[in-house]
Amino acid sequence: MTNHISKQFDKELSALRTHILQMGSLVEQQIILALEALHVKNIAQLDKVVEEDDKVNEMELMIDEECQRIIARRQPAASDLRMLITISKITVDLERIGDEATKIARLGKHICEGNQFKSTHARELQKMGQLSLDMLKQSLDAFVRLDASVMYKLFEADQHLDEDFSNELRRLITFMMEDTRVISTAIDILFIAKAIERIGDHATNISEYVVFLAQGTDMRHTASGKKRSQQNE
Amino acid sequence: MTNHISKQFDKELSALRTHILQMGSLVEQQIILALEALHVKNIAQLDKVVEEDDKVNEMELMIDEECQRIIARRQPAASDLRMLITISKITVDLERIGDEATKIARLGKHICEGNQFKSTHARELQKMGQLSLDMLKQSLDAFVRLDASVMYKLFEADQHLDEDFSNELRRLITFMMEDTRVISTAIDILFIAKAIERIGDHATNISEYVVFLAQGTDMRHTASGKKRSQQNE
Repeated sequence: MTNHISKQFDKELSALRTHILQMGSLVEQQIILALEALHVKNIAQLDKVVEEDDKVNEMELMIDEECQRIIARRQPAASDLRMLITISKITVDLERIGDEATKIARLGKHICEGNQFKSTHARELQKMGQLSLDMLKQSLDAFVRLDASVMYKLFEADQHLDEDFSNELRRLITFMMEDTRVISTAIDILFIAKAIERIGDHATNISEYVVFLAQGTDMRHTASGKKRSQQNE
Repeated sequence: MTNHISKQFDKELSALRTHILQMGSLVEQQIILALEALHVKNIAQLDKVVEEDDKVNEMELMIDEECQRIIARRQPAASDLRMLITISKITVDLERIGDEATKIARLGKHICEGNQFKSTHARELQKMGQLSLDMLKQSLDAFVRLDASVMYKLFEADQHLDEDFSNELRRLITFMMEDTRVISTAIDILFIAKAIERIGDHATNISEYVVFLAQGTDMRHTASGKKRSQQNE
């Protein structure tokens, strides 16, 4: 009987892990679609990204409810409880990544209305976006393999992304100084770059939860936490 | 014996609630100090806000660990479990509010280095900051009184704050167009306004958790959730 319950419990945990990966794929797809659509000025596709955000939100609620249901019913031991609480926290970060993708799509629509957006901007945002996507993939991969070492790679990648953001900010300031008519578009681009930079932060959060899960060590507010609070400097 | 355990458990929950309020007061104080210091260009006080962020982070970890310890040891029934999970989520939002206060202080230092920051900007940021502080107070008050109705007031206040942000953005664009030398400072001001606007979002999150706690209804991704994903439009 105990064995049976335990097997059932393992199945439930495994289903939750699968749902996290599905939610991860969904937000990844949202980022890819938003940046692609911005590049080719495809308004219909930008609209689609905004609409699909509901799916991300529904997945968060579904996974969160399932976690709480399992905790209440199974009264899991410490390590399983830690897994369930971690899954609940990862969904919050994935949902916020979905929000950032939606923000990119909305700002993208605004940008497409004008004609100040050059392919150099699109390329720079694509480059930053690709880096944030790699980070997201690595963080979810770390979750599946319970690989705590990935966190350090993500700290490094996050620093690169922050530098890319600072460089883009400098370029945009020059762009605005040269021609004041582009200021409004430049600020939209700035907020898109900021949204991408935040996706990297969320991926780093996820890798920190994995360390907590793998080693029982809470890595928030260590080097990376401090670094993150320094953003925008 | 059961009565004894239950009294002990009540004490633990009550201590956690007190800690949440202490953490709330701390981040509130951080926002007040940062905006005041920016107004009078007090660099030492801006530095102090940055340093004190460690205290906020420590409180988050402490409360979070305590929640998990209680869940593991007490194996609480559904409603108490809901309270503990909610407390854990509220600390995440309070910690992020602390991060925003730190961001304001860091950007403030940058601004104080130049002489482009006028008292009109300071007044506008103070006004927005006061609104976000009121929202934070109301959300924590709602948590203490388990008052679900506060959420609707906060939706409204959050809309005002978003409008204030949009107006400030427009003013800053005009400011930059009139004199390109102020662009860098204007962007710092813009990110401070954005940080304040996010404080309002976190306060709204907290009031949504209170509804979940009071009524067992998950209010995320309802009207307010949708509204929030539309920010930056």
